[in-house]
Parts: sequence; structure tokens; C-alpha cells
Amino acid sequence: MNLENLQNKIRNIPNFPKPGIEFKDITTLLKDAAAYKEVIDALAQKISQTHIDYIVAIESRGYLLGAPLAYKLGTGLVLVRKPGKLPAEVEKIEYDLEYGKDTLEIHKDSIEKGKKVLVIDDLLATGGTVKATIDLVKKVGGDVVATAFMIELENLHGKEKLPSDIKVYSLFKYK
Amino acid sequence: MNLENLQNKIRNIPNFPKPGIEFKDITTLLKDAAAYKEVIDALAQKISQTHIDYIVAIESRGYLLGAPLAYKLGTGLVLVRKPGKLPAEVEKIEYDLEYGKDTLEIHKDSIEKGKKVLVIDDLLATGGTVKATIDLVKKVGGDVVATAFMIELENLHGKEKLPSDIKVYSLFKYK
Repeated sequence: MNLENLQNKIRNIPNFPKPGIEFKDITTLLKDAAAYKEVIDALAQKISQTHIDYIVAIESRGYLLGAPLAYKLGTGLVLVRKPGKLPAEVEKIEYDLEYGKDTLEIHKDSIEKGKKVLVIDDLLATGGTVKATIDLVKKVGGDVVATAFMIELENLHGKEKLPSDIKVYSLFKYK
Repeated sequence: MNLENLQNKIRNIPNFPKPGIEFKDITTLLKDAAAYKEVIDALAQKISQTHIDYIVAIESRGYLLGAPLAYKLGTGLVLVRKPGKLPAEVEKIEYDLEYGKDTLEIHKDSIEKGKKVLVIDDLLATGGTVKATIDLVKKVGGDVVATAFMIELENLHGKEKLPSDIKVYSLFKYK
């Protein structure tokens, strides 16, 4: 399957989660075994250019890419979760959303100092969640060297919010 | 690594999420690349005895096993999510918790009629969430033939709540 055919497996849902937003629904791609495998293999190939020790995956759609990539690339998997979900001592970060605020947590002992980290989520939009996750990983001692996404919404310029020395790998781009 | 050494990678957290509960923290296993890989390979070997078309993974820790297993076994991955997260038309099920109720959703068009399904979560405790998921998959036409878990808390007898013709695969058992 070429990249365009793969990208066509993603379904557009108008007016979700609110009017005027066209949601990129990846469930139609995930349920297609061949397409899902090709997406993971294509992301793995991009990421393999960079040495990483840990993949940090953002709850919960980030797990859908981070878990098979950690398996395939032979890295550890570290979770960033919503508040109150991680059972041991956590570091946390609060960040601004379009309306209101949100908080993410990571285990304090999840990453040894200086280890190379890739942060992954399904989608790069305005970049707020990813930027917060990068800052959170730094707080616990990790060295974020790259980020990866299945989808990048280029018109929202999320990449510009991320430090310029961090690589950004994305598979499907929407203008 | 033998199974006992693998199981020792799971951390016990006393009094989480509430007093008297000892929480099985799998994050210490996930961050160990070799251990995580062995867990996925061991589960894949068990599951490969059964023909399945789709892995249905329960949000969100179920994704940590379901996603790499779908990748490795070459099956489609279907998501069961908390209310309001899935963007297309959903079927839903409400089920009883120890205190209160919870609801799970699945896309109505996620599984073609009669397809063979494995339901996966990280842990089998009292079985309420898994039983609800099995019923939910049936509502959309899937044929649940097996369930799989990294951890089974045998003293909670969750297995007895599941239909006896559905196989139950689990890796680490606690009495």
C-alpha cells in the first residue's frame, strides 16, 4: 500500500468533538491489519535514524503507536497519564488548552538521567500536549531527542512550538 | 528470563487506589525493553492456538498489550473506549462497579458479523469490565472466542463470570 492509500484508511468525522472541527478517526485504519502494520513499520523506519532508549507514550491514543513501536524497536515504554492514574510517586505538569487547563503525570523513577527519549502521540495539532510532555520528561531527567506522530495537521503549526533541536517524525500530513 | 523473573518486574503498590488494595504496577515491566518483549511474545504464543480476526482492546491499559499483539499476530485492532471518545456511531453498555456504574463504547461498524474476536486487558480481577466488553462486542456482531490478560487475580474468581466456552489466556497469576 502506498502512503496515500494508507492515509485514505483514516476517516474524517465532521463536527467532532465540536462544530467546525473535522476529526481524524484512526480506528478505521487500526482495524485494517495490513494498514496498521504498514503504519508501524513506516514509523519505525523513520525513528530508527535516531538512537533512543525509551518511548514515552501519551495516554491513550499514543499507546496505540508507542506500544508496538517499543516492541519492534526494542526500547522500553514509559507512560504519561491523566492525573491520579499512576500509582507510584509522580512528577506533574499543568498546561493550557484552548479553553481551560489540563494536567499530565509521569512516574518520577521512570527514566534514568540522560537517557534518550522519543515522545509519541497519534496526532500533532497545536502542539500543547506534546510540548508539556517534553517538559515533563525533562523534569524527571530524560533527554528528549525526537517526537513522532501518525498525523500532523500542518496548518496548526504545532512543530513551531517544539524546541528546534528535537526531531519531528510524522507520517500523514494535512494542510 | 523465566516467567517468575518476568513477574518480579511488576511492582506492588500498597493502598492504591484505596486503602487495603495492593495495586499491580506494570509500568516497571513496560520500561524494561527485554521484559516487555518477552511478555508480548509469550502472550502471542498462547493466543496463536486460536484463530482470531480482531483484537478488541479495553481503554487504556489494554492498548499496551493489544496494540503490539495485533501488530505481531497480524490482526486488526478495535478499541473499546470510555463514553464520548469514539467519534462515529457507537453501541454502548453500562455495567456495575463495586460502587456505582461505568459505561463502555465501541463503534457500531467496527466488526463484521461473525468475525472471531479476542478481548484483551492488562488485568483480570472480578471480571466485570471484561464481561461487559464481551457483551458489547456481541451487540455489534462479533464472535468472542477468547480473552487475554497479563495478570489474573485468581482469588477474585473473574474467570467464573465469563462464558465457559470462551478461552482465557493469562500470563501471571496471583493467588
